[in-house]
Amino acid sequence: MALRFDTISFLSDYGHTDEFVGVVHSVLRQLCPEAAVIDVTHEIPPYDVRAGGLTLARSVQYLAPGVVLAVVDPGVGSTRRPIAVEVGDGAAVLVGPDNGLLAPAVAMVGGATRAVWLNNAEHHLDAPGPLFDGRDVFAPAAAALCRGVALEELGELIEPAGLRPGIFPISEQTEDGLSAEVLWVDRYGNVQLNVAPDELDALGENFELRMEGRTRSARRAHHFSEVTTGSVGLVTDSYGFIALVADRASAADELRLDTGAQLTLVPLGEGPDESPPAITTPVQLGTQPARDRS
Amino acid sequence: MALRFDTISFLSDYGHTDEFVGVVHSVLRQLCPEAAVIDVTHEIPPYDVRAGGLTLARSVQYLAPGVVLAVVDPGVGSTRRPIAVEVGDGAAVLVGPDNGLLAPAVAMVGGATRAVWLNNAEHHLDAPGPLFDGRDVFAPAAAALCRGVALEELGELIEPAGLRPGIFPISEQTEDGLSAEVLWVDRYGNVQLNVAPDELDALGENFELRMEGRTRSARRAHHFSEVTTGSVGLVTDSYGFIALVADRASAADELRLDTGAQLTLVPLGEGPDESPPAITTPVQLGTQPARDRS
Amino acid sequence: MALRFDTISFLSDYGHTDEFVGVVHSVLRQLCPEAAVIDVTHEIPPYDVRAGGLTLARSVQYLAPGVVLAVVDPGVGSTRRPIAVEVGDGAAVLVGPDNGLLAPAVAMVGGATRAVWLNNAEHHLDAPGPLFDGRDVFAPAAAALCRGVALEELGELIEPAGLRPGIFPISEQTEDGLSAEVLWVDRYGNVQLNVAPDELDALGENFELRMEGRTRSARRAHHFSEVTTGSVGLVTDSYGFIALVADRASAADELRLDTGAQLTLVPLGEGPDESPPAITTPVQLGTQPARDRS
Repeated sequence: MALRFDTISFLSDYGHTDEFVGVVHSVLRQLCPEAAVIDVTHEIPPYDVRAGGLTLARSVQYLAPGVVLAVVDPGVGSTRRPIAVEVGDGAAVLVGPDNGLLAPAVAMVGGATRAVWLNNAEHHLDAPGPLFDGRDVFAPAAAALCRGVALEELGELIEPAGLRPGIFPISEQTEDGLSAEVLWVDRYGNVQLNVAPDELDALGENFELRMEGRTRSARRAHHFSEVTTGSVGLVTDSYGFIALVADRASAADELRLDTGAQLTLVPLGEGPDESPPAITTPVQLGTQPARDRS
Repeated sequence: MALRFDTISFLSDYGHTDEFVGVVHSVLRQLCPEAAVIDVTHEIPPYDVRAGGLTLARSVQYLAPGVVLAVVDPGVGSTRRPIAVEVGDGAAVLVGPDNGLLAPAVAMVGGATRAVWLNNAEHHLDAPGPLFDGRDVFAPAAAALCRGVALEELGELIEPAGLRPGIFPISEQTEDGLSAEVLWVDRYGNVQLNVAPDELDALGENFELRMEGRTRSARRAHHFSEVTTGSVGLVTDSYGFIALVADRASAADELRLDTGAQLTLVPLGEGPDESPPAITTPVQLGTQPARDRS
Repeated sequence: MALRFDTISFLSDYGHTDEFVGVVHSVLRQLCPEAAVIDVTHEIPPYDVRAGGLTLARSVQYLAPGVVLAVVDPGVGSTRRPIAVEVGDGAAVLVGPDNGLLAPAVAMVGGATRAVWLNNAEHHLDAPGPLFDGRDVFAPAAAALCRGVALEELGELIEPAGLRPGIFPISEQTEDGLSAEVLWVDRYGNVQLNVAPDELDALGENFELRMEGRTRSARRAHHFSEVTTGSVGLVTDSYGFIALVADRASAADELRLDTGAQLTLVPLGEGPDESPPAITTPVQLGTQPARDRS
C-alpha cells in the first residue's frame, strides 16, 4: 500500500514506567503497519505543556516529513478539543490537544494552513473511559492520515487562527542589559536561554549574569573546552540559541538555574583582548561523575 | 519470507540503564529481521512478577496479534520452566517464565489452548552463564515462532492446567462497603482499583474512602476536570476500572496510597442531587510541577 | 535500494529526558530510511566514556552486523577527532569520537582494519553550533556507510594504531589472592568483576572478599537460587565474567560496592564439601521491592 505519509514522530509526557507508549505503538502498528514510528521523547514532565511545546519546536526542523503525534494533555476528557493542524499546504500534519502544545512548532514551520477538530467518532477507538486520547483519538488520527484519509474526514474544519496559542518568552533589551529567561536545562546541565547569538554580538565578549540575589561572570566561547574549570561560557548551542555551559560540569548546578528562571546579561567589556573581570562569587563545582579521559 | 507472525510485543523488568533491552532486540533482529518489535514497557520494578502480570493484562487487548515476549524472572537459572503459551487456537503465543507472569494476560484473552516447555536446546543461544534467558532462550523462541517453527518443535508439550497461576485480587462486598485493593499507580498519580464501574452503580455517587488509619471522601466523576481542586474523584479509567483521580494533581500522593494498599469504599448518599458530604480530613495538595495553561 | 549495511546499533549517554535520541533517529530516518536502528542503551552516565566503552564491549558480540553508532563525548566541539573504525575487513564499522569509547569493542572483535577521520564536511549536517555531533557528524556518517558510501569518502584515512586506546582493568594474582575491580553494577545489583571463571577454578569454592575496611565471605554458585538468603554468590554471568550476586537482592547494596571499586578475593577452602566459613560481618539485607512468588 502506498502511504501518504510514512513516518509518525511521537512525543508525549507518558514516561516509560507505564505501558502508555507501548500501547500507542501497538495501536499504530495495527492501524498502519507500514508507517515508521520515531519516538522524539516521552519524558516531558507530566502535564508540562510549555516544556512539551518547546521540545517540539526545537526538534521539528529535524523530524522526518509526515505526521507529528504530540500528547501532553492535562485536560484530557474535558472540553479542550483534540485537533490536527496541517502545515506547509499538506507537507506535514501535527496531531494533539488544542492547548498550546503544538503552537510553537507550527509557528517554526511557517504556520497552519488548515486545521480540524477531531470529532468524527468513526475514527476513534471505542474506549471504556475518556482518559487516554493518545490511544483512542490521536493515534487513530495519525494512522488515518498516513493511510491517506483526508483531513476533513477526521472532523470539522476549524479556523487555524482560533487555535490556542503557545507561549514563547521574548528576551528584552533593558537599561541594565539583556533580560532573558531559561528555556531548557538539558541532561548535561547546559542552560538554554531565549537569546539568539546576534543579540549578544554588539555587546562584547564578557558579561555579568544577574540572577535572583546573586551575580556571576560569563564569557562567550565556541565550545566546552574553551571554558576554563570553574568558569561559565556563553556558547551557541546545537539549536542556534545561546546556552550557559561549563566544561564537563553542569552549568545549571553551578548557577542554580532551572527552567523558567529569569536573569539579566550585563555587558562588561568590549572584546576578548581585555582581561577577564574578577569572578564575583566563589565558584563551587558541582559533584560530577568521575570521567575517564582515556 | 512470509512470516507466521510479524509482530513481537516485548515487556520486561530490564530497565533502560543497562543494555539488556538492546541486546534482546539485536538477537531478534538477527534471528527474524522482518518482525517488528514493539516495546510495551521495560520499567516493571525489578523482579515484580505481580506488576508485570497486571501490566501485561491491561495491555494485551491492544497488542498487535503475534508473539508476546515477557520477562520478569527472579528465578532465572533455577528450576522454573521457560514456557510458550498458545492462545486463541494459535492466534497468538506468549513466551516467558512459568512464574505467573503470563497468566493474567492469558486469562484475559480466553485461556491457553496449548503450552510448551522451552527445553529444546537447539533453539537456545549458547551462553556462558545461565542468567539471561531473555537473550538466550525467550528471544530465540519468539523469533522461531515468527518464522513459523511449530510450537512443539521448541520443546515438550505440557498441560496448560499445570502452569503457575497469576494473582488477581478480587474486590469484596462487606457489611461496611466495597473492600478494594490498589492495582496500579500510574505516572500521573492516578490510582487504579480492582473495581469495575458497575460494582459502584448501585451504591450512589458519594463515598467515604476508609484507608489504614484515615478517611477521605470521594465522588464519582467522568473526567479530571469535574473534580474540584483538593477533591478526589472516582472515574472509569482508560482500561475500564475505577480509578481515584485528582485534577492535575497526584491522587496517590494526596491519599498516600501505593500499589497493593487496601481500602474500603463506603457509600454515603443516593445520588448527585444530595449535597456532598463534608470532607473528613483536611486536604493537603501535593507539590506539583508548575503547569502551563497556555 | 540495496544497502551495504541494514542495521545501525546506537549507544549513547543522551538519556531519554531530552529529545537527543529522537532527533538522531529522525536524521537517520531521512538519510537512510531503509536501515533499522537498534537502541543498545542511551543511559550511559553523562560523559562516562569508561562505562560506555565497557557496555559496548559487552554488547558487541550480540549486535547485528552493520554500523555501530556510539556517542559519549565530553570533548564534543573541541579537537578530539570524530572517527569511523572498520573491523573484520569491512564486516562492520564503528562510528564515534576518538576518545577511547570504541576501543574495547574494537579489540573484542579482532581489532581495526582501517580507520577514517570524519573530516569531510560534505557528509556533515549544517549546524548552528558545534555541540551535537551525534546529529550533525556521526549519524550522517552512519547513514552514508549503510547506503554504501566508501569509508575513505568520509574523510582522511588514519592509522588505526594511532587511535586513543580504551581502558580495561586487568585482574592480578597477588600474595593475598586475586586483586579485582568492579566493572559494572547492573539494575538488579549484580556486581560484575574483571575476573574470568577459570581464574577462580584453581582457588576453590569459598572466598573471603576483602574490600576497603571490611570483609565478607562468598561462595561459587551456578545461579541465584543456590545462594542462600543473606549470602553472596560468585556466579558466571551472562557475559562470561564472574559476578557477585545475592538471591533476589542487590549484592551491590549488601556489599556497598560500586563501579570501579577494588577488592581482593582470598581463597578460603578447597571445595564444596568443606563447611562454609563463618560470615565475618553481619548481613544486612537491603530493602527490596515486595516480590510476588505467584
